[in-house]
Amino acid sequence: MTLQPNNQPTTGWRNVLHEIIFEADTPAGKLFDVVLICSIILSVAVVLLDSVAGIRVRYGAILYAAEWFFTILFTIEYILRLISVHRPLRYATSFFGVVDLLAILPTYISLFIPGSQYLLTIRVLRLLRIFRVFKLATYLSEAQLIVTALRASRRKISVFLFAVLTIVIIIGSLMYVVEGGENGFVSIPTSIYWAIVTLTTVGYGDISPQTAVGKALASMVMIIGYAIIAVPTGIVTVELSQATRHMITTQACPACGLQGHDRDAQYCKHCGAHL
Amino acid sequence: MTLQPNNQPTTGWRNVLHEIIFEADTPAGKLFDVVLICSIILSVAVVLLDSVAGIRVRYGAILYAAEWFFTILFTIEYILRLISVHRPLRYATSFFGVVDLLAILPTYISLFIPGSQYLLTIRVLRLLRIFRVFKLATYLSEAQLIVTALRASRRKISVFLFAVLTIVIIIGSLMYVVEGGENGFVSIPTSIYWAIVTLTTVGYGDISPQTAVGKALASMVMIIGYAIIAVPTGIVTVELSQATRHMITTQACPACGLQGHDRDAQYCKHCGAHL
Amino acid sequence: MTLQPNNQPTTGWRNVLHEIIFEADTPAGKLFDVVLICSIILSVAVVLLDSVAGIRVRYGAILYAAEWFFTILFTIEYILRLISVHRPLRYATSFFGVVDLLAILPTYISLFIPGSQYLLTIRVLRLLRIFRVFKLATYLSEAQLIVTALRASRRKISVFLFAVLTIVIIIGSLMYVVEGGENGFVSIPTSIYWAIVTLTTVGYGDISPQTAVGKALASMVMIIGYAIIAVPTGIVTVELSQATRHMITTQACPACGLQGHDRDAQYCKHCGAHL
Amino acid sequence: MTLQPNNQPTTGWRNVLHEIIFEADTPAGKLFDVVLICSIILSVAVVLLDSVAGIRVRYGAILYAAEWFFTILFTIEYILRLISVHRPLRYATSFFGVVDLLAILPTYISLFIPGSQYLLTIRVLRLLRIFRVFKLATYLSEAQLIVTALRASRRKISVFLFAVLTIVIIIGSLMYVVEGGENGFVSIPTSIYWAIVTLTTVGYGDISPQTAVGKALASMVMIIGYAIIAVPTGIVTVELSQATRHMITTQACPACGLQGHDRDAQYCKHCGAHL
Repeated sequence: MTLQPNNQPTTGWRNVLHEIIFEADTPAGKLFDVVLICSIILSVAVVLLDSVAGIRVRYGAILYAAEWFFTILFTIEYILRLISVHRPLRYATSFFGVVDLLAILPTYISLFIPGSQYLLTIRVLRLLRIFRVFKLATYLSEAQLIVTALRASRRKISVFLFAVLTIVIIIGSLMYVVEGGENGFVSIPTSIYWAIVTLTTVGYGDISPQTAVGKALASMVMIIGYAIIAVPTGIVTVELSQATRHMITTQACPACGLQGHDRDAQYCKHCGAHL
Repeated sequence: MTLQPNNQPTTGWRNVLHEIIFEADTPAGKLFDVVLICSIILSVAVVLLDSVAGIRVRYGAILYAAEWFFTILFTIEYILRLISVHRPLRYATSFFGVVDLLAILPTYISLFIPGSQYLLTIRVLRLLRIFRVFKLATYLSEAQLIVTALRASRRKISVFLFAVLTIVIIIGSLMYVVEGGENGFVSIPTSIYWAIVTLTTVGYGDISPQTAVGKALASMVMIIGYAIIAVPTGIVTVELSQATRHMITTQACPACGLQGHDRDAQYCKHCGAHL
Repeated sequence: MTLQPNNQPTTGWRNVLHEIIFEADTPAGKLFDVVLICSIILSVAVVLLDSVAGIRVRYGAILYAAEWFFTILFTIEYILRLISVHRPLRYATSFFGVVDLLAILPTYISLFIPGSQYLLTIRVLRLLRIFRVFKLATYLSEAQLIVTALRASRRKISVFLFAVLTIVIIIGSLMYVVEGGENGFVSIPTSIYWAIVTLTTVGYGDISPQTAVGKALASMVMIIGYAIIAVPTGIVTVELSQATRHMITTQACPACGLQGHDRDAQYCKHCGAHL
Repeated sequence: MTLQPNNQPTTGWRNVLHEIIFEADTPAGKLFDVVLICSIILSVAVVLLDSVAGIRVRYGAILYAAEWFFTILFTIEYILRLISVHRPLRYATSFFGVVDLLAILPTYISLFIPGSQYLLTIRVLRLLRIFRVFKLATYLSEAQLIVTALRASRRKISVFLFAVLTIVIIIGSLMYVVEGGENGFVSIPTSIYWAIVTLTTVGYGDISPQTAVGKALASMVMIIGYAIIAVPTGIVTVELSQATRHMITTQACPACGLQGHDRDAQYCKHCGAHL
């Protein structure tokens, strides 16, 4: 077997298998993907229904069978994927390879640790393939834009999260000292949990300050949380704006060389030359 | 009857009817619209009041009569609309046609399924006509801007919602396994509901984590939810910014008449003519 | 008395009074304003303390006396303001004139309707004078910027609020039909209240859905609320951005006439001419 | 000892000490910093664990010993820092100097006021040194950007907070009059606390309106809070956008060396030289 680009094996039947399983260009390949996506959705639905006590009591046996049916199906599929690719290890360690494995493991583990089968819902991650199958290229490029913006702002977001973490630890300790265990702030970790609940404006109300000083402190935390949400929003907005502008305007005018044209421009807006 | 543009029938009385019901240029047409809007507001108020137990006990009979009065009124209006337009089917399948029908159906259905009359509040959608009647053209163009921005960002928003859905399913399952039924996480769908309540920072507190691991996981979900609100905000801000800039520069090219030039453009980007 | 600009009377003592009360340029005028601001803060503190049961029981008499003291003080001040201005009616109907009156009325009304004195806290609005007194011109211009942006986006915000109102009415009715009175959704107005609590991500949890369909609907409302907060944010950001840019760049180059220079620019960035 | 820049003493051993403690360039200095950071994290973990009742009962003695161990360690370090710098007072009054002192005081104070040792968590602030130690210069410059944007918007944010404070005081009083003590609004300060909880969309639900008028008012507050979050977000976004644009164009003028030119600038805006 010679080394080839595109990860494709040369042997005939493995080539065909690869085309069906990994590509969505042939009718067989497309059919395979559609069946796969339906199976994933069904299998996740089975897990969800199985967790509802009322339904489990009635249809437990059927759901249990369905769970094993899908798991065996996905196990066969996983093995076929391993066989059909040129470099099995590379696939097995890729994002989808790991997800495909994690999507079958919980059922086997549940034989030893009951309850772990509920983690099968990680199968929804396999649905990300949906974009490739249905040629949702535009969606992919839009998603790419968001990812680019988030990646560009990862350092600013890290700094922001570090600041938030520092704030909630200090405020959590203060509230623990001020309110004390009898008002629900039973420990500093619990107080930090309360500080996060408050700063992010979630506000369950399972723990809430009772003393006047505690309420004053809590009010400050709320206003801080209300105001600093502006920071990640501003960061992502600026980066998204940059990423969008970049996507629009990477075309230079052949006459004057200036960029910054709209996507629908046919003539340079600076010198009037045809683009 | 010959085919005519603008959906207007040629027959005299239907022409007049059309003018009164669909246009707001003549005094009669304007009067009709004002009466209609008042009727809609009154009829919605009747439904709202009827749902309050204390008021229903006292004024039930009057409210019931008023409900039927408005329904019959709107039924007659709907029939007149169908008669007066040139292409009844086109109207019936248009947005306002469907709304007009949905605004009368619940009363009739309530004869068979009691309680469905409360869905009459869908009549508020008929109030959207208010913009046309009072010539609120500026408001309409502003609304148009928002709609344009939202439409331009619909793909990015879809990708975002898909990501959110994936996150809440996986986190919901994790929390179900970690917390279990005795702490309120009685099933995965319920846990997913909790994950949505938390991620969107609504935080009812009807279900909240009790174990240390659960609280740690919940803290992570809150911080994720607090941070990723930046994504839709950034998307819409960028698109609104683009749409606004576009609207500002609606200077038309003297040669080809096309609009959408940047403020600093000196040549038409469509035909190359000097602006 | 002749008509004069600047609302100033010609008579000597009224002139002096006007200078002291309305201006903050003379030492006497500044002293008056500082005393006034302290009095306002103290009088609001008195109202706040008086509302706390424990404190009222102990110091009720003193607080009651203080309340009347400040009210009589502000009443005298209000009368002096009326006397010292050239056009009393214009002052009385201006924003500050109305606030000054509302800041003394509740005490007198409380003689007939007990409890209304707590509305005296409206006196905090009088503190807005603080910006003028301490020459916080920069703050005023920044505030102006925000007001400009909000005014420019008032139509878009109105459209947005109209849409939100429509959504909460329809969703409130749906939830009333789905959940019914036994789960806390006792009437459509109450359900609308719940919808607002949910859509704005406040989430008190005093009413929360109990049925599966209700929870699914609520999840949708939450995600809608989580996503559409992007709309007002986007609107205000774009307008603020426009307003800021305007403030920065209203200076044209004398040589080439182009604008868009930074505030700290000394030379035109297009032609190099001195600005 | 002669006055020298950079705060460095000339004496040999103090010079070496300074290099180890304050710099991270030499292996010894780096080792010192890594040990320091680990100690800080461990000591904070000790405080957190000590606050959990279950753990304190079991391992109280060990944790108490660890607390004193770290405090004495940090006290020695603090004294060494004071000795090794050229101007001890300048260090002692600097941000890190104050934090270093606050990070040891609570343990000593806890001898007189039990419970104050939980404030030791302020030690997390010492972790800010982490950026310098690991040469996270990029993170620092990103953090700088955020700080610049926040500083530039401090006046607008102040005006916004002043407006929010005015709103919550007036709405708090209104709700106190409308709802009264029997519904949880026991005093105006408590009502103001409720108003902050609602306006910031935290929504604990420990206090929530019960009357129809109160619910209507609360709905208004929620919608206001939901809409005006746009203001700080807009402010910070615009300032971040400005700061980012500035940072991008740090191209220095060849003639005067000044930076801050726009990307499309052809001439220096400070001296007029061609870029």
